[in-house]
Amino acid sequence: MFQEKIDLANENMIVTPWVVSGEIDYDKLIQQFGTEPITEALLERIKKHTGDLHLQLRRRIFFSHRDLNWILDMYEKGERFYLYTGRGPSGGVHIGHVVPWLFTKYLQDKFGAKLYFQLTDDEKFFITPEMSKEKALSLSYENALDVIAVGFDPKKTKLISDMKNAKVMYNIAIDVAKHVTASTAKAVFGFTDSSNIGIIFFPSMQAAPCFVESVFEKKNVPCLIPAAIDQDPYWRIARDVAPKLGYYKPAQIHSRFLPGLGKGGKMSSSMPETCIFTVDSPKVAEKKIMNAFTGGRSTVEEQRKLGADPSICTVYDYERLMFESDDEKLIELERLCKTGQILCGECKQILAERVKEFLIEHQKRREKAKDLVESYFLQS
Amino acid sequence: MFQEKIDLANENMIVTPWVVSGEIDYDKLIQQFGTEPITEALLERIKKHTGDLHLQLRRRIFFSHRDLNWILDMYEKGERFYLYTGRGPSGGVHIGHVVPWLFTKYLQDKFGAKLYFQLTDDEKFFITPEMSKEKALSLSYENALDVIAVGFDPKKTKLISDMKNAKVMYNIAIDVAKHVTASTAKAVFGFTDSSNIGIIFFPSMQAAPCFVESVFEKKNVPCLIPAAIDQDPYWRIARDVAPKLGYYKPAQIHSRFLPGLGKGGKMSSSMPETCIFTVDSPKVAEKKIMNAFTGGRSTVEEQRKLGADPSICTVYDYERLMFESDDEKLIELERLCKTGQILCGECKQILAERVKEFLIEHQKRREKAKDLVESYFLQS
Repeated sequence: MFQEKIDLANENMIVTPWVVSGEIDYDKLIQQFGTEPITEALLERIKKHTGDLHLQLRRRIFFSHRDLNWILDMYEKGERFYLYTGRGPSGGVHIGHVVPWLFTKYLQDKFGAKLYFQLTDDEKFFITPEMSKEKALSLSYENALDVIAVGFDPKKTKLISDMKNAKVMYNIAIDVAKHVTASTAKAVFGFTDSSNIGIIFFPSMQAAPCFVESVFEKKNVPCLIPAAIDQDPYWRIARDVAPKLGYYKPAQIHSRFLPGLGKGGKMSSSMPETCIFTVDSPKVAEKKIMNAFTGGRSTVEEQRKLGADPSICTVYDYERLMFESDDEKLIELERLCKTGQILCGECKQILAERVKEFLIEHQKRREKAKDLVESYFLQS
Repeated sequence: MFQEKIDLANENMIVTPWVVSGEIDYDKLIQQFGTEPITEALLERIKKHTGDLHLQLRRRIFFSHRDLNWILDMYEKGERFYLYTGRGPSGGVHIGHVVPWLFTKYLQDKFGAKLYFQLTDDEKFFITPEMSKEKALSLSYENALDVIAVGFDPKKTKLISDMKNAKVMYNIAIDVAKHVTASTAKAVFGFTDSSNIGIIFFPSMQAAPCFVESVFEKKNVPCLIPAAIDQDPYWRIARDVAPKLGYYKPAQIHSRFLPGLGKGGKMSSSMPETCIFTVDSPKVAEKKIMNAFTGGRSTVEEQRKLGADPSICTVYDYERLMFESDDEKLIELERLCKTGQILCGECKQILAERVKEFLIEHQKRREKAKDLVESYFLQS
């Protein structure tokens, strides 16, 4: 219903806030979306402030940006930025969701940045015919537990539910909405006259947190948004409107999509066998990993002789994106794989242990978060 | 920008929530809008409960309805209804605005009904390019003083500002919005792709109070909306959506437009000389009345001889709509006018005294309301 096809050379590639499918050509995405690649020079500049580079920067998981140099200019002049990210709450938070949050936590820790995390329960309600408001709101609370479990600084982190915090959000959103025509919303998001008037208004709700700190602080505060690149259309709207409202344009840092355990595409909650959910039991997670798609050969003999292909292997991807933080070891793993010195079963076993360990710790923190969740939400 | 022409035989007649102009043919409006006329039988039925009929019923100022018989059925079964009306706040509340509020107060008093009064500051903000949110909200507060001054029961009356009470309003509005397509909003309100996404969403904010009492009471509560007939498109949307949400359709009772002091059209704040504002000094009001358009002749001699025409006289209209509550006296005034036994100057002088008296009392109550206004607003 809301699919906006990005017409690239690769006709199978679809990237919108609601649909990501096909093989993704990230260079073309940068070109098409008009963003900037994260260069070596920019990485060096970040490192000056952070001391080290997060693996998601080193490995170009976060690969594109808008105005990140400007954010650093401001920071070097003593003007602190805040972070804004979020998600459309759903029944299951999976590891693919957690990956950019870990990077967001790194930014928070290194730059001492405040974080607003938006849960767009209204959006989920608008686009899901059978979903009730009560369900959408309860998903916000469920998902909030996972956000909290990531370990963001409680003093510097505020969760926003569009429904619960409608007073603050609506009053900023109307500023945005006044400057966005139906025509623009249709062109950017692919809405049609059959779209409901809630989802047509919604881009202004998602733009609202770009300005929330400026509203609270009663002065202009720079905002940096770490998010997957499919969310870029929202920030294009926000960036277009910002100067008209007297605010800074929100800066962005874009990630790739985390591949699922199945072949191609991004991890999708609607295909549960392709995702490890944060509430999966270690046993279930292990089983999913043991069934994952890899770049292995049909037989052990063949693999020992010809080696396997880590570039299409989802098990390798998990190591690269999250679990193997040591670059040397990752390169070594790649070498062992390509030369047939390690088999898929062994790799899966190693990953399964790591994922199980992660899940046990995450689930402990998630349980503790149940007592704290209300205090993390914006109170107005 | 938002004009939806209702294509009637009378091509000069335009009736939309934003524009009313031309000569209004009320029978055609009933036909076109698909509402029902208020019959003698219905008046008798109302009178059984109220004891008397308000002059605005006797004189068919309120002339049309939807489901009023159903509201009385429910009432007779012991199920109380609540009232909902409102206004788009502007710089000036004039007597034309107060007329239906007086009728609403009568309904509240006679039926012991709760009233929600919505101030659509968000709408004014969306459709007025130069208006700030601060200004829109302050107008809500200013206009609230006039609403309170009318004398609604403080225990049974709640004011709603869409901006101040966005949490409650947005959370009901999204229920409505999910069931209204852009296409419907365009057809009903004449929006185009150049309309901003705020005003396109807005009909769901105006529909929200149709269901607010049911939400608060956690059970279905019948709602009756007294309002000028130009607002009907909003309730068509609300009535269409209500069953899908499990609510009763809001019933309505429609008023005609109060003619201004100039010739034809409704009183309009944008033409200040055609309105008596509630904050006008008695002297200013008197001057406006002395300059009002009447059905008089060019010379005293001619008028004494041929009589004048009360049917086009704005001074007579004020008496009929609000100031002369005695039907006998009104008929006598009409007779004196038609037979040339009373001159326009005399009529104007009588009306001016009555208006001045009203203004002095209203302004006293309006002044007192300044201490109470916050307590009248919904607190969530």
